[in-house]
Amino acid sequence: MGGWSEITSTVCPIARSSAVIGDRWTLVIMRELTMGNRRFDTLQAQTLTSPQMLTNRLKRLEADGMLERRAYSERPRRYEYHLTDKGEAFASVLLALRAWGETWCKEPEEEVAVHHLHKTCGREVGLSGTVCEGCGKPFTVHEVMGEVSVAFAREREDRSAAARQDAETRRT
Amino acid sequence: MGGWSEITSTVCPIARSSAVIGDRWTLVIMRELTMGNRRFDTLQAQTLTSPQMLTNRLKRLEADGMLERRAYSERPRRYEYHLTDKGEAFASVLLALRAWGETWCKEPEEEVAVHHLHKTCGREVGLSGTVCEGCGKPFTVHEVMGEVSVAFAREREDRSAAARQDAETRRT
Repeated sequence: MGGWSEITSTVCPIARSSAVIGDRWTLVIMRELTMGNRRFDTLQAQTLTSPQMLTNRLKRLEADGMLERRAYSERPRRYEYHLTDKGEAFASVLLALRAWGETWCKEPEEEVAVHHLHKTCGREVGLSGTVCEGCGKPFTVHEVMGEVSVAFAREREDRSAAARQDAETRRT
Repeated sequence: MGGWSEITSTVCPIARSSAVIGDRWTLVIMRELTMGNRRFDTLQAQTLTSPQMLTNRLKRLEADGMLERRAYSERPRRYEYHLTDKGEAFASVLLALRAWGETWCKEPEEEVAVHHLHKTCGREVGLSGTVCEGCGKPFTVHEVMGEVSVAFAREREDRSAAARQDAETRRT
């Protein structure tokens, strides 16, 4: 059992989706790509994956039509990883995961990691997942703008700094 | 890295959720529990997991507060697996995965596996994920009723029959 063999052996869309993204690292990589983090080094820094793991997951995501590679440097040849329409659309699953995780995987005193602002009303959409708590209207992924909290921004900056230091150490 | 160590090392709700359910088998087990399939044998039949895998995943889900075991037989002692409020709430993620999977992981000629009917208007909610395509109103998980398609019902019946035959063979 596994991968594409399961894709066609069941009509269930959850089983099919899980064959594409049923992996915790893939979810976090998709989070980063959706946030606009597109390069190998910065993806590695923010997802805390090993180079081998990240390479495997990116190859798999490319094979599954979730992303495409675009060269941004010729010498050395380097790529950016851009989401396809299929990959972009996965943001709806990340939104649902975010709402559930903020509600059920956190202590009450912890702050929301990313404030999701409703572009049309300017207020936070909250955690209901379907209707903006600010204006009461339903919203789509495209109508939401993320604003990283101070704590999450610090966590991300710490990871970047650790990755830079790591690269520095390997160079000397 | 892994499990609860990651839960508290990041403020990101997607990373935290993925520590609980970032596993394809767990997603399919959650699908079954959400559909009301609560016993070990029938869970195994529908998820195509090995007994060891299913036992591990159910223990993990119990430790993460997603389900609770309730004895339904004393001799032999047997349990049903019931979703907690946290586990029930995960249906919002399954709904998002379903909509994405039906849209992006299927061929155009394939039918929807489960028709999701809007209890308040009686029509199909469709695949937008937030607003009912039948009546244009936003809907929650609780306002949706699943109706398994003929193809998915047959697939499920085939799995049950295979499991029964398997059990029969082991007995003789």
